[in-house]
Amino acid sequence: MSNERLIYLPLGGAGEIGMNCYVYGYGKPGEERLIVVDIGVAFPDMDGSPGVDLILPDISWLVENRNRIDAVFVTHAHEDHVGAIGHTFEQLGAKVYARPFTANIARHKLAEYGVAGESVRTCSPWPETVTVGPFKVGFLPISHSIPESSGLVIDTPAGRILHSGDFKLDETPLVGEAWDPDLWAEVSKPGVKALVVDSTNVFSRNPGRSEATVGPAVQDLVANAKQMVVATTFASNVARVKTLAEAGDRAGRSICLMGRAMRRMIEAAIETGVLTNFPKVVSTEDAQNIPREDLMLIVTGSQGERRAASAQLARGKFNGITMKEGDTFLFSSKTIPGNEKGVIRIINQFSEQGVDVVDDSMGEYHVSGHANRPDLETLQDVVNPQIVVPMHGEHRHLREHTRLSQGKGRQGVLAVNGMMVDLTGNAPKVCDYIETGRTYLDGSVQIGALDGIVRDRIRMALNGHVLVTVIIDEDDEPLGEPWCEIKGLTETGRSNAPLVDVLEEDLSQFIGRAGGKTLRDDDKLEEGLRRIVRQSCLNEIGKKPEVTVVVSRLS
Amino acid sequence: MSNERLIYLPLGGAGEIGMNCYVYGYGKPGEERLIVVDIGVAFPDMDGSPGVDLILPDISWLVENRNRIDAVFVTHAHEDHVGAIGHTFEQLGAKVYARPFTANIARHKLAEYGVAGESVRTCSPWPETVTVGPFKVGFLPISHSIPESSGLVIDTPAGRILHSGDFKLDETPLVGEAWDPDLWAEVSKPGVKALVVDSTNVFSRNPGRSEATVGPAVQDLVANAKQMVVATTFASNVARVKTLAEAGDRAGRSICLMGRAMRRMIEAAIETGVLTNFPKVVSTEDAQNIPREDLMLIVTGSQGERRAASAQLARGKFNGITMKEGDTFLFSSKTIPGNEKGVIRIINQFSEQGVDVVDDSMGEYHVSGHANRPDLETLQDVVNPQIVVPMHGEHRHLREHTRLSQGKGRQGVLAVNGMMVDLTGNAPKVCDYIETGRTYLDGSVQIGALDGIVRDRIRMALNGHVLVTVIIDEDDEPLGEPWCEIKGLTETGRSNAPLVDVLEEDLSQFIGRAGGKTLRDDDKLEEGLRRIVRQSCLNEIGKKPEVTVVVSRLS
Repeated sequence: MSNERLIYLPLGGAGEIGMNCYVYGYGKPGEERLIVVDIGVAFPDMDGSPGVDLILPDISWLVENRNRIDAVFVTHAHEDHVGAIGHTFEQLGAKVYARPFTANIARHKLAEYGVAGESVRTCSPWPETVTVGPFKVGFLPISHSIPESSGLVIDTPAGRILHSGDFKLDETPLVGEAWDPDLWAEVSKPGVKALVVDSTNVFSRNPGRSEATVGPAVQDLVANAKQMVVATTFASNVARVKTLAEAGDRAGRSICLMGRAMRRMIEAAIETGVLTNFPKVVSTEDAQNIPREDLMLIVTGSQGERRAASAQLARGKFNGITMKEGDTFLFSSKTIPGNEKGVIRIINQFSEQGVDVVDDSMGEYHVSGHANRPDLETLQDVVNPQIVVPMHGEHRHLREHTRLSQGKGRQGVLAVNGMMVDLTGNAPKVCDYIETGRTYLDGSVQIGALDGIVRDRIRMALNGHVLVTVIIDEDDEPLGEPWCEIKGLTETGRSNAPLVDVLEEDLSQFIGRAGGKTLRDDDKLEEGLRRIVRQSCLNEIGKKPEVTVVVSRLS
Repeated sequence: MSNERLIYLPLGGAGEIGMNCYVYGYGKPGEERLIVVDIGVAFPDMDGSPGVDLILPDISWLVENRNRIDAVFVTHAHEDHVGAIGHTFEQLGAKVYARPFTANIARHKLAEYGVAGESVRTCSPWPETVTVGPFKVGFLPISHSIPESSGLVIDTPAGRILHSGDFKLDETPLVGEAWDPDLWAEVSKPGVKALVVDSTNVFSRNPGRSEATVGPAVQDLVANAKQMVVATTFASNVARVKTLAEAGDRAGRSICLMGRAMRRMIEAAIETGVLTNFPKVVSTEDAQNIPREDLMLIVTGSQGERRAASAQLARGKFNGITMKEGDTFLFSSKTIPGNEKGVIRIINQFSEQGVDVVDDSMGEYHVSGHANRPDLETLQDVVNPQIVVPMHGEHRHLREHTRLSQGKGRQGVLAVNGMMVDLTGNAPKVCDYIETGRTYLDGSVQIGALDGIVRDRIRMALNGHVLVTVIIDEDDEPLGEPWCEIKGLTETGRSNAPLVDVLEEDLSQFIGRAGGKTLRDDDKLEEGLRRIVRQSCLNEIGKKPEVTVVVSRLS
């Protein structure tokens, strides 16, 4: 028997929804050759990551084992699967493999980092395969909410793995390949060791609905609208954008796409031939001269993002267009948890403008791109894997999906980010724990989520910030009085005197009382001054602020 | 004809859900005698109000017209209706009127501010009335999700107003008075000038469900649970707490209430006689010694609040109790928009502990406390008012509710916070705009939402903060080098040198180049230093931070 092994290691996406990054390895323990599947981003928020631009998986382990990486495969072009490709390409130093549409998007991302397009190899779907190290990998088409989504067939000396990617079982997806149970059954016939599988909708009890079911309701809505119609959806949902555009077109309206991401996606879909027969669109300049009852805009910003087209229209104007009383705004989307307030904000702004907002609260104008619980069961029945490894989900999703699989008499493995699972034998086992986490892209630099930088920002936001400067002369005597500046705190507290005056008075008294031992010792002096500020603020305003002390010594 | 008029002025709650505060006035324009209905709070969040403790309506207008206020009426004891009573009592200087349960809660809030209990007058329900100035006001029982919720019958020389308060049409509310259509019809018989009415659920198309429908599902769940059961709901939903406790009791479990708010509410409900036959509860100490399969906890924290019992149990331990694999945790509640992430966080933490979490996603374990669209129509039909004034809603709710009323052939008025509406004549008209907004309780002080204090906090959180100190001697020459401190920024940027070193170097060069004109002028010097810091940071780390400059002049 060889002592080689087959390992699975999620570094992102297993324990959260977002920043997917999965690693497979084969070889002697510690010397496995590796492939990476997907390398996506997650999005920051004010609660946990204020000021951060993007959240990336912590790939330190991959960087340490860089010479063992043979390839990066990207299943589809959603940001949570491809978004970090540009930020990590140099660190990983491996070629990227993807199907044409995904490759088109990936190349644009790499170009921003000055990486040449040939670093991305364009692949054809199964039965074509790519051999990298001990792996033979093929892209197996499956339906999702973006064109050319693919599962991966990963053949290894220890058996075949099916990595589902994000998927739904849609036989009429309108754009891109339909779910083809015969194809998946055929690929599974030789026996599948492990099905590594999307868990997003494991709590959704009814079978998923096809993309094709959205069209009629949208057509009705657009046909009956009196004034301008504006619709928003996820820019990457090319099928939906087409459905929306066709509804406008049939109602005799000119179609205008607004928002950079929307135009970029449609452009890539047309360039790569996955999108055909898209209605003719007009430019944003021309749109301004079309009577509003003859116009339909399809715009970015379904999640209420402040800078996207929807939010700008809600605030007043975008690309020369303003909304008016009697216009219709359609959310052909669902609100991702955490984005509710932003979405509600723009709905209220539209309400103030007299715009009629229609959303998917009745389930007519949107369908999910992920397989629901019965569909997950169907996939297992078709693939009949030895082991089920739930991925793409929070802990609750992975746990439920594991239990679902076990309930069907299969081995299920609950593996979260950092858990290395040995899939070689009959029973999967966790064989190592890798340190993982999140890396923040902050401006132009990457910082660790636990570096304390973001923690300091949150503290300043919660507590305000007081700056104290003190000058100590050559004889270790204070020169002048301590000086305070406040930021993010009220100017006047309980005593009705300016807060800085109260603080400076208290600090002066402290310095007056302080002995030479304190005045000569920066740490002692700073600690003392900080304590005084926090105590005085607590008395005056009921808060203990962050304090920065600068002791300037003349020498 | 007299030139007296009847006015309605919302100061909070009309254009948002939260911090309700409505004013009615009668008299000569500008001399109307006033009553205030409700004075509640809203809750801060990291996005818009970091570090803030509570959000109160801006009552400047009331304070300016303090001598015209005859009374404050509180319809029910929810925080968004009574929460600001303590913080504003001294400013308003008026007696508070409420029914016994609400009065009990209000007195506790006033006691925290050292206000004596007799400032709150306890009222009996209609037909008893209170006469204050030109108003005769009665508390008209109606069902909601807290005991003794009441509408107000407000009789004025210009006619009768019905102020609905928060309500639902529940004929079996379990605790507190049922919806009594005959009573409301009888009160409406003489003719109702205006129905001022809750709009929260105007978008919910199906009739609301009774509190009584929750019991059977909860009983099933608790009866079938194998290990400990923990349930959370809104602490003030006394009927629900009773339903939960009874389910536990019937299943032979000891009941333990955890969380201060939960115990406070049940205590008040028992003290005032609105809650009877509540199952016997055990103390938190005793609970620790009861086998977990015989125990049921009812706890605070249904919204994922970090300090509440639920979140503490999710993180590990609360009152000596830890959750274990096989326990059941029930959310008998809905998640209020904006709280999704906090709730999902604790669900995932429970998942990691092996706890089975059950929520209301299938609509079995919770019902809303607000009237749905068909119920709003029913109330209008019963009351048959001349004018409908939607309140208690965001703009979208008020607009929809206004249109609903107009669709039924009534006059509807869309009045948001600050719009003073003259209700005297046959047609309501907006007669004034009052400056309103939000006041933040921040530590122990109140600050204006637009004072710039919170804006500065948000900016520090997004951009980080750089402090620069420079000492200028008696001859207007720099003494030593500029000094930088950073907070909330990475220590090392693009050039791999410490960021502070790069900044100090750039600042030194600037100061070296600066002429006497700049060095003598604090504003010019500060502006120059700030600009250098922002530009250097942009180069080094791709961010422009907040900058505070302290120029110390020796004199």
